[in-house]
Amino acid sequence: MDNTALFQLSYGLYVVTTKGKGRINGQIANTVFQISDTPVRLGVGLNKNNLTNELVKDSGILSVQVLERDVPFDVISRFGFQSGRNVDKFADIAYQTNADGCPILVDGIAAQIDCKVIGAMDVGSHTLFICEMTDAIRNDKTPLTYAQYHERKKNGGALLGAAAAVPEVAPTAPADGTNGKRYQCMICGHIYDEAKEGVPFADLPEDWECPICHVKKKMFTEVK
Amino acid sequence: MDNTALFQLSYGLYVVTTKGKGRINGQIANTVFQISDTPVRLGVGLNKNNLTNELVKDSGILSVQVLERDVPFDVISRFGFQSGRNVDKFADIAYQTNADGCPILVDGIAAQIDCKVIGAMDVGSHTLFICEMTDAIRNDKTPLTYAQYHERKKNGGALLGAAAAVPEVAPTAPADGTNGKRYQCMICGHIYDEAKEGVPFADLPEDWECPICHVKKKMFTEVK
Repeated sequence: MDNTALFQLSYGLYVVTTKGKGRINGQIANTVFQISDTPVRLGVGLNKNNLTNELVKDSGILSVQVLERDVPFDVISRFGFQSGRNVDKFADIAYQTNADGCPILVDGIAAQIDCKVIGAMDVGSHTLFICEMTDAIRNDKTPLTYAQYHERKKNGGALLGAAAAVPEVAPTAPADGTNGKRYQCMICGHIYDEAKEGVPFADLPEDWECPICHVKKKMFTEVK
Repeated sequence: MDNTALFQLSYGLYVVTTKGKGRINGQIANTVFQISDTPVRLGVGLNKNNLTNELVKDSGILSVQVLERDVPFDVISRFGFQSGRNVDKFADIAYQTNADGCPILVDGIAAQIDCKVIGAMDVGSHTLFICEMTDAIRNDKTPLTYAQYHERKKNGGALLGAAAAVPEVAPTAPADGTNGKRYQCMICGHIYDEAKEGVPFADLPEDWECPICHVKKKMFTEVK
C-alpha cells in the first residue's frame, strides 16, 4: 500500500476562524468542501488537538476564508505554524468580524463563507464538522490550491512564477551536529530540514508532531 | 449571500467505482478528501440519485481513481454525463478489477485508492461515505483539478495549453427557435448552451437536473 497515493488528491487552502469560549482564533485547513447542494452544506475537517476545534465545539460557528493565490506567505505561517494556545494570531493583522463575531481577514482572501455547525463526526485524528452556510462573499481573486502552497513553500514562500528566494551562497554542510538530512511528511508534504532546524530528526521526541498536519514522527520519510 | 463563493473551493476530479448488487458501475465525483491521518480515512460524497451511491450502500466497497491532467475528455463524459442505469459504462473501455472486484481504469489515472466504507452520513442531496483505505497505488502522473476540468470543458475538452477546439465557422444566430442564450450551473459551473442543445432553457421541465451535479434548474443563471 503506497500512502503517497493520498498526495494525488487535490485541495484548496483555507483559514478557518471562530469565536468561542470568549476568544477568537483561526487555523489553516485544507479539508473544506461542499457536501450537499440542496441545502448547501459544507464539511470542514479540523484536527482534534487544535484550539480552533475546541472553540468551534463550544460555539457552533465558524468562517471559512479561501486564501488567494498570491496571499503573503506569512499569513499561512501565522495561522498554520503556531498554536493559538501560545500566541494571539490576530494581534497585529487587519481583520473585521462577521455577524457571529468570527474574525475575517481583510486581505489575501478569495472568498468568505460563514457557517453554522449542524453536526460533528469524530473521524479519528480529526473532527469533521457538517455546516450550513449562513453568509458568503466572493472576491475577484484566484484561489490558492494546496499543490501551489507546497510549490511556494519549496521556494521559500515566493509567489508562483516569481524567482525562488534562493540564498546567494550555496548551502554547505551543516556545522550544527546534524547530518543535514531532510524528511518529508507523507501526509501533508511538510519538509523537516535538519540544516534549518538545527536538531537531528532522530533526536526529536517520539511525541513530536508534524507542525502542519500533526501526524506523528513515523509518518515522515527521508528525502533522498 | 453570494452562492458563487462556493466556486472558490478547490477540488480534484475522480472516478469512483464499485461492485454491488451483482454489477459494476462508476461515476465522476469531485468530493473526495482525506479526513483523518491516524488511521487514514477518506470522505467520499456521492449524489443520492446516482446508481453508484445505491451500489456502494449495498456492497460497502468503492475505489477512488484520481484522473490525470491529460485524461481523454471522453473518459469524463463516459462516467459523468450518463447514468449506469441506462448504459454499461465499462462496455468498451480497458479496466482491471481490484481485490474487491471494483473496476479500475487502466489508462488516465494518477492514483488508485481502494476503500472499505465504515460509515455513511445523509447530508442532504448527497451521502457522505466515510472510508478506510485498504490499498493504494500512485502513478507518476499529475492529477487533474476541478478548475482545470472546467477550463478543458470550455475548450471543447482540449488538453490544457492546447489550442481550443474552436469551430472553423463562427457561430451564427441559432435557427432552432432558441434564443441562443447560455446558462451556467452555480454549483458546478456546467454551461447549458441553447444553441448546442436546441431546446430553450425556459422549456426544460421543472424536474430537469444539471447533468453534472444534479441540482435543479433554479440553480442556473444566465451567462451575460
